[in-house]
Amino acid sequence: MTTTPDTEKKTIYGRPVDQNVPNLYNGTPVVQWTPPEAGIDNLGLHSWDTFQIPGVGEFNVEFDGYVRVVRSPATNTEWADAEVYTNLIEMKMVAESEELGPITTTLNPECLSAGQIRTPFDPYAGEGPAAKACRMAVGCLFDIPRLGKVLFNREPVILTIDDVRSIPPAGAPGKGQIYRMLPLYDTKDPWGEPVGYLTSLRFNMGGYLAPEQIA
Amino acid sequence: MTTTPDTEKKTIYGRPVDQNVPNLYNGTPVVQWTPPEAGIDNLGLHSWDTFQIPGVGEFNVEFDGYVRVVRSPATNTEWADAEVYTNLIEMKMVAESEELGPITTTLNPECLSAGQIRTPFDPYAGEGPAAKACRMAVGCLFDIPRLGKVLFNREPVILTIDDVRSIPPAGAPGKGQIYRMLPLYDTKDPWGEPVGYLTSLRFNMGGYLAPEQIA
Repeated sequence: MTTTPDTEKKTIYGRPVDQNVPNLYNGTPVVQWTPPEAGIDNLGLHSWDTFQIPGVGEFNVEFDGYVRVVRSPATNTEWADAEVYTNLIEMKMVAESEELGPITTTLNPECLSAGQIRTPFDPYAGEGPAAKACRMAVGCLFDIPRLGKVLFNREPVILTIDDVRSIPPAGAPGKGQIYRMLPLYDTKDPWGEPVGYLTSLRFNMGGYLAPEQIA
Repeated sequence: MTTTPDTEKKTIYGRPVDQNVPNLYNGTPVVQWTPPEAGIDNLGLHSWDTFQIPGVGEFNVEFDGYVRVVRSPATNTEWADAEVYTNLIEMKMVAESEELGPITTTLNPECLSAGQIRTPFDPYAGEGPAAKACRMAVGCLFDIPRLGKVLFNREPVILTIDDVRSIPPAGAPGKGQIYRMLPLYDTKDPWGEPVGYLTSLRFNMGGYLAPEQIA
């Protein structure tokens, strides 16, 4: 079910998951309240990010793209008791900002971006009694050619989805849990001062994509 | 001002800071709205943590102890423009829980726990116009002998202090920015399922301690 981690990864944000499981594309059923078999979800993703670049300004940027998420088998066949572990193994999000130009966000290959889905200890009002909470800790690269920089984060971006009624939570809205500002560093000057900050992130998980939509 | 990181650290949560600066103890003045010289702050700390241990229960635990924080020189002599980078180089927090017995929290030596103090992009109502925001990303070890386990986190605990009017923010309240549950793993089974979760953390920064109070 889990393996020792890929030795190329320097920073491990969660539990490693065995990637030797089937790829899942469009046509895969998404069933509520039912733990699924292990697999790799190929899903659309849309996000709205806010960046602060000191001395330059604040930028609201809309991204579209896809993620590939490998899921462990559920720890239990009963939904209520099931836990599922996830690794984000690929991401490509593309934006066109009027001020910053094109931006491409991918995974930082030095990080194992990882998360889990489980029943929360603090069910929220408005969530179904059996709704689960999903979290994923992510290391990103933000390639911004107009700035001549590729930025990366050292605190993981914590992506969360609440009120999860199916796995994957296709179509669900989510949020990056960023407190005020998440520092971003320049890959060409990794020990220097942060050159930007991520100050807000919202997203919508899409559904399963066709193989040809994963570039 | 900064150095390449200690090679023993596998996980780097922020910018490394040069530790070759004076130790500061009780008697050191704490001056408002004034960037200080670089130094190592030896400070008291008190915290209230909530742990969830699946299958065992929820535990509210009160810790007392100290931290040693190395600060970089400020990037500017003017308070408004000054940024200060910090590394948490030592921590010892001790609790006595009725249910869990003694708990000792220290730093995970594999992690560089790091943070910064800067003027926020989103000043809060109620903060002074020149108040700064402080954040620190921390990798911990929670030694709980009664459970026979030492737990560690892979998502850093993000400790934040708002409305910072002096550096260090001695006497200020702060919060761990934990969204619902932060997974904790067993050092003896690091690739296994999380064995506990940190679900809440509040703290009060103390003042400068005497050398003999740092054990």
